[in-house]
Amino acid sequence: MGEFDLIARYFERPVRRNPLGVGDDCALLQPAPGMQLAVSTDLLVEGRHFLSTVDPRRLGHKALAVNLSDLAACGAQPLAFTLSLALPRVDEAWLAGFAEGLFALADVHACELVGGDTTGGPLAINITVFGEVPAGQALLRSGARAGDDVWVSGTLGDARLALEAFRGTVSLPQEVFEAARRRLELPQPRVALGCALRGVASAAIDLSDGLAGDLGHVLRRSGVGASLPLALAPQLLAATAAGLQLDAQRVEEFVFAGGDDYELAFTAPASRREAVLDAARSAGTPVTRIGGIEAAPGLRLLDARGQAVVRKFAGFDHFRTSPAHDAG
Amino acid sequence: MGEFDLIARYFERPVRRNPLGVGDDCALLQPAPGMQLAVSTDLLVEGRHFLSTVDPRRLGHKALAVNLSDLAACGAQPLAFTLSLALPRVDEAWLAGFAEGLFALADVHACELVGGDTTGGPLAINITVFGEVPAGQALLRSGARAGDDVWVSGTLGDARLALEAFRGTVSLPQEVFEAARRRLELPQPRVALGCALRGVASAAIDLSDGLAGDLGHVLRRSGVGASLPLALAPQLLAATAAGLQLDAQRVEEFVFAGGDDYELAFTAPASRREAVLDAARSAGTPVTRIGGIEAAPGLRLLDARGQAVVRKFAGFDHFRTSPAHDAG
Repeated sequence: MGEFDLIARYFERPVRRNPLGVGDDCALLQPAPGMQLAVSTDLLVEGRHFLSTVDPRRLGHKALAVNLSDLAACGAQPLAFTLSLALPRVDEAWLAGFAEGLFALADVHACELVGGDTTGGPLAINITVFGEVPAGQALLRSGARAGDDVWVSGTLGDARLALEAFRGTVSLPQEVFEAARRRLELPQPRVALGCALRGVASAAIDLSDGLAGDLGHVLRRSGVGASLPLALAPQLLAATAAGLQLDAQRVEEFVFAGGDDYELAFTAPASRREAVLDAARSAGTPVTRIGGIEAAPGLRLLDARGQAVVRKFAGFDHFRTSPAHDAG
Repeated sequence: MGEFDLIARYFERPVRRNPLGVGDDCALLQPAPGMQLAVSTDLLVEGRHFLSTVDPRRLGHKALAVNLSDLAACGAQPLAFTLSLALPRVDEAWLAGFAEGLFALADVHACELVGGDTTGGPLAINITVFGEVPAGQALLRSGARAGDDVWVSGTLGDARLALEAFRGTVSLPQEVFEAARRRLELPQPRVALGCALRGVASAAIDLSDGLAGDLGHVLRRSGVGASLPLALAPQLLAATAAGLQLDAQRVEEFVFAGGDDYELAFTAPASRREAVLDAARSAGTPVTRIGGIEAAPGLRLLDARGQAVVRKFAGFDHFRTSPAHDAG
């Protein structure tokens, strides 16, 4: 099957929300009056971002989910996406599964595939996603101010827990492993929460590389610092919150530097706590207040006595050999 | 050097035309009132779309040029782009050269880099480009009508000539080779022509896979056919137009199925010939009228007596082993 047949069979669907979709030189988008278009792009490479053995349905889901998570972090409503695929061979069962997982998530968010490119080559997936946000209301990394609270959505570190189980560095009961594996392979982008936080949160970021590293971007862009108690870790990791016993330092590492969480970390003025909780309720997404923004730059991790301690967590970096992602 | 340092050093530049660029979860674009956003994406993989030995400046140019060519084919004015890079290693000289070639072309078209992603992996480049076009005025593949003329811009087949010289299947004088190599490595997207053809052309496409295959997309989308004389080939190939002697069938193959031309093929009513020539003059881009659109579907290639003849030109397909692009 050639490139054009492949596109037509698996990836060409009529558009409803956008003026022109797959099949011409360009797609056409038209944001509603007063809206800005939020754009993000993510490149996933086999062996770095996913295991070669992953279910193609889950891979299709995840490839779009990690992009939708960026829209969520800006408070943008999904609108459309493009898909570029490099494939070592044309494997119809794989393509059918990939398309199924991709479109299932796309349909949940009314996010239409409007264009793309396919080529032979080592397996790689690039999605560029487009969302709408009212002009001037996008959540940015730069808006955190001293006195703000720091919040996170959902639970953190379970994706990393699953990866460590795959590697054999931790042994998990089957049920715990399956739940953690779903967190790794089927992340749920927090789109509803991101949109509900417009006008409430002062800054936001999605957690792809680990809380410490990603929150660090917010702190640098905002010119502020934060303190977070390490003791929060066991309650933020779903598996330990549910009773799993794990070495405390590993739990801290998974929660603060695990990667692949695709939750939101955000800041909001202390005066808006009720508004944050209302947004979380309206989105059906749990949130936890984990610390506060301070004027002194840098991220401080606090021990049980409230003393800042040194941990060698590094923000995840796809160029370094990383325990979190170099999973091939 | 890690991912974030790399982005900051080579790819983070302030935006002027767009509300928000590199450095947050999303970029923000805001098309002017009444404008639609044209979007296209191209994935280039080493060994398929470019030789591993290519000058990184030329590769940076070409990676953006092939995307701008899609905007040109829609009559859209460039606005912004995102860049995803998978790199086997961090080679600063290569990155500096790539960025130089990329931004030189971007600056010509006032097209701003607004976001991207970088990762380790086999060398691959994905650019998604954004342009503005007045709502309802985009040039589409579907607008050709019987009686329209068929036109092409510039010259065709010289990129393929250079590729064949690299392969040793043709021997060229040094000057001819260098000129052809520039066509292969430094394609010039026909942005000014595409914009000037708004309201004049009835359909358009950019020529990436060869005239016969790409014009075939226009014919199918428009439900029409066309006849083109094979005898046009020597005058459309710059090298033979300038006096190079080549086997006639090879010239036909290079011109009709060469690939990598990044010229525009377009149709326009016969009544608009003067308007087409005015658009070409205003854009500073030569155009040639090469045939006519007919009601009977399919592309007919005509011999010197006006008889349709069979040629085994295939539209280029990045999944098949193709002489035009499988250049590793």
